[in-house]
Amino acid sequence: MTAGSALGLLREIEDVGRDRHRGGYSRHVFDDAERDLRDWFVERASGLGLDVSTDRNGNLWAWWGEPGPDAIVTGSHLDSVPGGGAHDGPLGVVSALAAIERLQQSGFAPTRPLAVVVFAEEEGSRFGIACLGSRLLTGALSVERAETLQDASGRRFGDVARDAGLHDFGADPEALARIGVFVELHVEQGKGLIDLDTPVGVGASILEHGRWRIDVRGQGNHAGTTALVDRRDPMLPAASAVLAARRAAAARSGSRATIGRVEPVPGGTNVIASRVSAWMDVRADSEQDTREIVAEVAAAVADAAAAEGCEATVIEESYSGEVRFDPALRGRIAATLGDVPALPTGAGHDAGVLAGYVPTAMLFVRNPSGVSHAPEEGADDAAIEAGVDALVRTLEELS
Amino acid sequence: MTAGSALGLLREIEDVGRDRHRGGYSRHVFDDAERDLRDWFVERASGLGLDVSTDRNGNLWAWWGEPGPDAIVTGSHLDSVPGGGAHDGPLGVVSALAAIERLQQSGFAPTRPLAVVVFAEEEGSRFGIACLGSRLLTGALSVERAETLQDASGRRFGDVARDAGLHDFGADPEALARIGVFVELHVEQGKGLIDLDTPVGVGASILEHGRWRIDVRGQGNHAGTTALVDRRDPMLPAASAVLAARRAAAARSGSRATIGRVEPVPGGTNVIASRVSAWMDVRADSEQDTREIVAEVAAAVADAAAAEGCEATVIEESYSGEVRFDPALRGRIAATLGDVPALPTGAGHDAGVLAGYVPTAMLFVRNPSGVSHAPEEGADDAAIEAGVDALVRTLEELS
Repeated sequence: MTAGSALGLLREIEDVGRDRHRGGYSRHVFDDAERDLRDWFVERASGLGLDVSTDRNGNLWAWWGEPGPDAIVTGSHLDSVPGGGAHDGPLGVVSALAAIERLQQSGFAPTRPLAVVVFAEEEGSRFGIACLGSRLLTGALSVERAETLQDASGRRFGDVARDAGLHDFGADPEALARIGVFVELHVEQGKGLIDLDTPVGVGASILEHGRWRIDVRGQGNHAGTTALVDRRDPMLPAASAVLAARRAAAARSGSRATIGRVEPVPGGTNVIASRVSAWMDVRADSEQDTREIVAEVAAAVADAAAAEGCEATVIEESYSGEVRFDPALRGRIAATLGDVPALPTGAGHDAGVLAGYVPTAMLFVRNPSGVSHAPEEGADDAAIEAGVDALVRTLEELS
Repeated sequence: MTAGSALGLLREIEDVGRDRHRGGYSRHVFDDAERDLRDWFVERASGLGLDVSTDRNGNLWAWWGEPGPDAIVTGSHLDSVPGGGAHDGPLGVVSALAAIERLQQSGFAPTRPLAVVVFAEEEGSRFGIACLGSRLLTGALSVERAETLQDASGRRFGDVARDAGLHDFGADPEALARIGVFVELHVEQGKGLIDLDTPVGVGASILEHGRWRIDVRGQGNHAGTTALVDRRDPMLPAASAVLAARRAAAARSGSRATIGRVEPVPGGTNVIASRVSAWMDVRADSEQDTREIVAEVAAAVADAAAAEGCEATVIEESYSGEVRFDPALRGRIAATLGDVPALPTGAGHDAGVLAGYVPTAMLFVRNPSGVSHAPEEGADDAAIEAGVDALVRTLEELS
């Protein structure tokens, strides 16, 4: 493998987990596609002479040298959103493998342990909580809470995890203590690097963000025979939530509120729904803005539910305060790479979770479409090569 | 079996197709549960000495005596909406079997052929078009259109039908010509008989009704990184459609418009949807009202789509004009039963499709909840017994 091997590695997995219905990829933790990717990662990392193991939370670790402490760790994730792009997650993993091979070929001898990590369920697409693997490892998410998380088919995380051989998931202070520094390379999920006309940047911060579940309960009934006055249709308050989320975010500069997942039950054309669940994603510059947006949406839903004879609840599923990546580490990396730009992002990452515990940095790689979490996401070959170069130089500098 | 056997037959199938997620039953054409019900029907009808066969469109026929012409036909359907009740469909089938047994036990000798029919895909829950079996039989739905209908997994009706042994589906003039008169007994899907405090009524008419599919296409993207001004989020026009449907129906007395099924793609919490499909069910007293409601909703969706940079289409999936059941037949049955009330309904039925071809009548059986297309749907034992009595007397009168 050469510097071009990041591209070669991406090609090796380009058929794994394709989603014919949505387009792009659906690779969810412990489904067939994600297991195939795990097997593939073990094979490729072992081929580089790395020692690969799975930790108690299903995160994969490939070590160059004896494991920690004070290790330099790089990597990302292999799972995707439903119908996601090819690079969100895998680019950080293949770039890490390519960088390590390049360092090996150059005769580089690391002075600190070095590891490639693949975090589990970064997108939260199966069990609802993003960065599940890193949140469990750090103890940011309790075992009790994780145990009862359910996927769309009603299976609990605890059962799925045990089926996957994880009989003791939860905080892993030994694994955490081995991490001296974490650097995550990731495809950019916006247009910052396009506008700056440069292939690579470093992460500055991550917006406040969280997820809320809105449940509206009404009365399922026949769409033809039930007079309007007799209806308790939960779809109306749910629709009000969608519009209120946009209004509330638009009133606060830099904020975003999105409802991208709506599930009416039973979901029949000639049936008034009995209940509707909607998931709201909110991001803002401050906790105050975030809380105000959620409160405005909750009030709009409550009003609409009362008018329709429905009951509504809004439950926080996860919340992450603003992350500012370690300024000294960021400055050191930017200087090494020739003063590349620092970019804020609205996207959560395992690096954002780890930033609360260890010095953490991110490298962003230019995405020509500026689109993410969709099949149109991309990274041009030159930017991918520049990303691997940047990661190699960063690892050399830190070592 | 005695008059109580309708209840006994319902108990025999009370575990078939239970839907643990939605509650109630999900029994969709040619799925496991619906096939089990077909096998059960064949066994029970054969046990009464009836000759059972499946016609070219998957409808089941159980004949007492030589098949047609000028036959008296009764029956209903065994499929359900997602998470439907136990009686919508099956009550008409079990009452027909119970009535035939009662006639046999009384020594009754029919002067005309008599048949029990089970129509396929009455609810349209799998392939989107209600009364698929009767529409195909009568030729109201073309083979070309049926061929390409798709279920939620993308399977085409033509392929599913052929897998089920239907190699020649389409208009069946011979089967239609055998039907001299059709009487469908059905659980009431409203509160008419509760308000009148009587267990059985006859059908007067069926409202105009139809189904429209609303598709909004935008740009899938990351919920955190995509600024509001850069969004093309199809969920917003879809939400506008939900609210516009209610407004438009409320402005026209007696009208109903419902969106009970909404499917965002990809449907991730941290993903702006790339497209949203919503299905709208509209019913009204007149075609003008129906058309105006659809036009108002389409205009609201178009406006919201334009504001969001999305594209929207509204496609008619099915449309049925008002049905007025044969007044002479209805009067004859009502008089036989002692001047039971005549009721209009907002619900479509195979009887509504057949009414365009042969004299057709409906018997409604009281539903204590007034709720339908939901697990709360019901029929009290006394009303079920009265329904079987009414069907026995109707068949005797017509024979």
